[in-house]
Amino acid sequence: MTIKLNQLSKLTQKNTFIKFKILILLCLLYTGFSSAQITNDISHEEAFTAILAAKKEAEKSKVVVNIAIVDAGANLKGFIRMDESFLGSIDVAIKKAKTARFFNIDTGKLGELTQPGGIIYNIELSNDGLITFPGGVPIKNKKGKIIGAIGVSGGTIEQDRAIAIAGAKSILE
Amino acid sequence: MTIKLNQLSKLTQKNTFIKFKILILLCLLYTGFSSAQITNDISHEEAFTAILAAKKEAEKSKVVVNIAIVDAGANLKGFIRMDESFLGSIDVAIKKAKTARFFNIDTGKLGELTQPGGIIYNIELSNDGLITFPGGVPIKNKKGKIIGAIGVSGGTIEQDRAIAIAGAKSILE
Amino acid sequence: MTIKLNQLSKLTQKNTFIKFKILILLCLLYTGFSSAQITNDISHEEAFTAILAAKKEAEKSKVVVNIAIVDAGANLKGFIRMDESFLGSIDVAIKKAKTARFFNIDTGKLGELTQPGGIIYNIELSNDGLITFPGGVPIKNKKGKIIGAIGVSGGTIEQDRAIAIAGAKSILE
Amino acid sequence: MTIKLNQLSKLTQKNTFIKFKILILLCLLYTGFSSAQITNDISHEEAFTAILAAKKEAEKSKVVVNIAIVDAGANLKGFIRMDESFLGSIDVAIKKAKTARFFNIDTGKLGELTQPGGIIYNIELSNDGLITFPGGVPIKNKKGKIIGAIGVSGGTIEQDRAIAIAGAKSILE
Repeated sequence: MTIKLNQLSKLTQKNTFIKFKILILLCLLYTGFSSAQITNDISHEEAFTAILAAKKEAEKSKVVVNIAIVDAGANLKGFIRMDESFLGSIDVAIKKAKTARFFNIDTGKLGELTQPGGIIYNIELSNDGLITFPGGVPIKNKKGKIIGAIGVSGGTIEQDRAIAIAGAKSILE
Repeated sequence: MTIKLNQLSKLTQKNTFIKFKILILLCLLYTGFSSAQITNDISHEEAFTAILAAKKEAEKSKVVVNIAIVDAGANLKGFIRMDESFLGSIDVAIKKAKTARFFNIDTGKLGELTQPGGIIYNIELSNDGLITFPGGVPIKNKKGKIIGAIGVSGGTIEQDRAIAIAGAKSILE
Repeated sequence: MTIKLNQLSKLTQKNTFIKFKILILLCLLYTGFSSAQITNDISHEEAFTAILAAKKEAEKSKVVVNIAIVDAGANLKGFIRMDESFLGSIDVAIKKAKTARFFNIDTGKLGELTQPGGIIYNIELSNDGLITFPGGVPIKNKKGKIIGAIGVSGGTIEQDRAIAIAGAKSILE
Repeated sequence: MTIKLNQLSKLTQKNTFIKFKILILLCLLYTGFSSAQITNDISHEEAFTAILAAKKEAEKSKVVVNIAIVDAGANLKGFIRMDESFLGSIDVAIKKAKTARFFNIDTGKLGELTQPGGIIYNIELSNDGLITFPGGVPIKNKKGKIIGAIGVSGGTIEQDRAIAIAGAKSILE
């Protein structure tokens, strides 16, 4: 019995060793590529999830909006315009999402700094036009890493922000 | 008897007169609204349907694409970028959808006319840039009325066109 | 002794078990985040490396050029304009780098398809202007994954392409 | 003695004559080129130096930034985006550098004049968008002549300005 256990123990040790080597290899592989940044990007499934959650929130608030999702590179990933929502909100929603990702910030917070006398007055003129009132928020994954952003336009700024937050949070559930 | 018939005739005349007045009223009503066009526009639910059908077709063809939907006013209605698809195809897909609705035509057909020597050579320079190769098609409702358009970019032009057609047809089912 | 070995064995087993649990946890963590894409992006050190290698190649060819690097999201990461090189090549170099990343392709290869009669004729009008002649190439990491792109302008198209390739390859060394 | 003085005098006269001829030659040379301005422009080596000095200062301040250099013609000369720095700061850094050179001024100083009621209110709308808060400064050579400008974006406006100044000063060392 003891011998058998010992043999088992040795096998286990051998297995452990192999597993350990695999772990080291994985670590080395990881290190080997560490010169490039390893980033996290929103997937199209997550974009769908966020859009549908935002739309649901909009319907709950009885408001029609435009919802835009950009990826980690601030490129358009998903979009929907609810029926009867403002045509002018297409671009506003997209610019809100881009602005939120451009500066990793709630667009409303940015707007507090861009007013006359503000420390970054008129930054809106950069990047082909920023939108710096509420309705754009970064989207984070479970690790807290920003993987994109969502922009909402069509309701009041409070509604737009609440809908954007509902969309951003949905991918964590 | 004759009297009775006359009375009947009068009643009939009266009825006829009432019916005539209703007809005139309807005509007036119609005229009253005739200054505005009665349009048919794609709904966001139909846009979702078309996007999902196009995505399914793309997955079947083992290709990743960008899918854009514009409404009857050629304004962006819906969009999705499949993971790993070309970043440059965001704009191409949107421009294909817009081009298809701008001229109510399969973008590939338009491209036959825009070549050097073609009757509308370089029309691509209008409208902030048209895309005139295959991948954009109008979306029609069951009455055959154009209600928007779909643009697809990321695969071969044949794949893009087939995916766009699959998306456009899906709302008729 | 046997007992001691057994105890050791048990400790080892316990350790193994703990390591195994860590491994599983790591796997779960990985799976938990698998809904987001894990991408690879060029670092600024790699951008410097590529720019310097490209510049060295240009000097070897006795030509002065503009060198632009974009990241995985097609956003500008690095740039240098060599003394006496064309002012008009600033934008051409940046657009070459963007085009190469937009479609994950050697810009010269793309240009073969955009000529009159080509399958994607006039695609240059999308994305605020593409450049589809040689001088832009994707930058890949050691895994073969595209992490950005380099665009070179100022020499002949053959020189530009060779310089771009020298830059792209330098980060693999 | 007198003879010696005479001889010396003759020698001096001869020397004076030679010097006079040189002076005339120099004047002719100068006149020959006087139709073109003699400008001083930042070299790519100086651009590298400024970028690296700015990056070092940013690292010291534990902040990640975008650094842009423009030449005497306000054209992009060099650029680097530090890993994890804001995507929206690419354009802001470039616009800060351009603005600093456009008006040969610290962008923060310009911003004091562009506020509502200011003497050049909304000048930001010119030149495809100026940035008029701190972070852009002219680059001077040892003669005090402006040869370009540097723009920094990503930190606080105080950090951005300090980093820009560190970059600008580095080429004087």
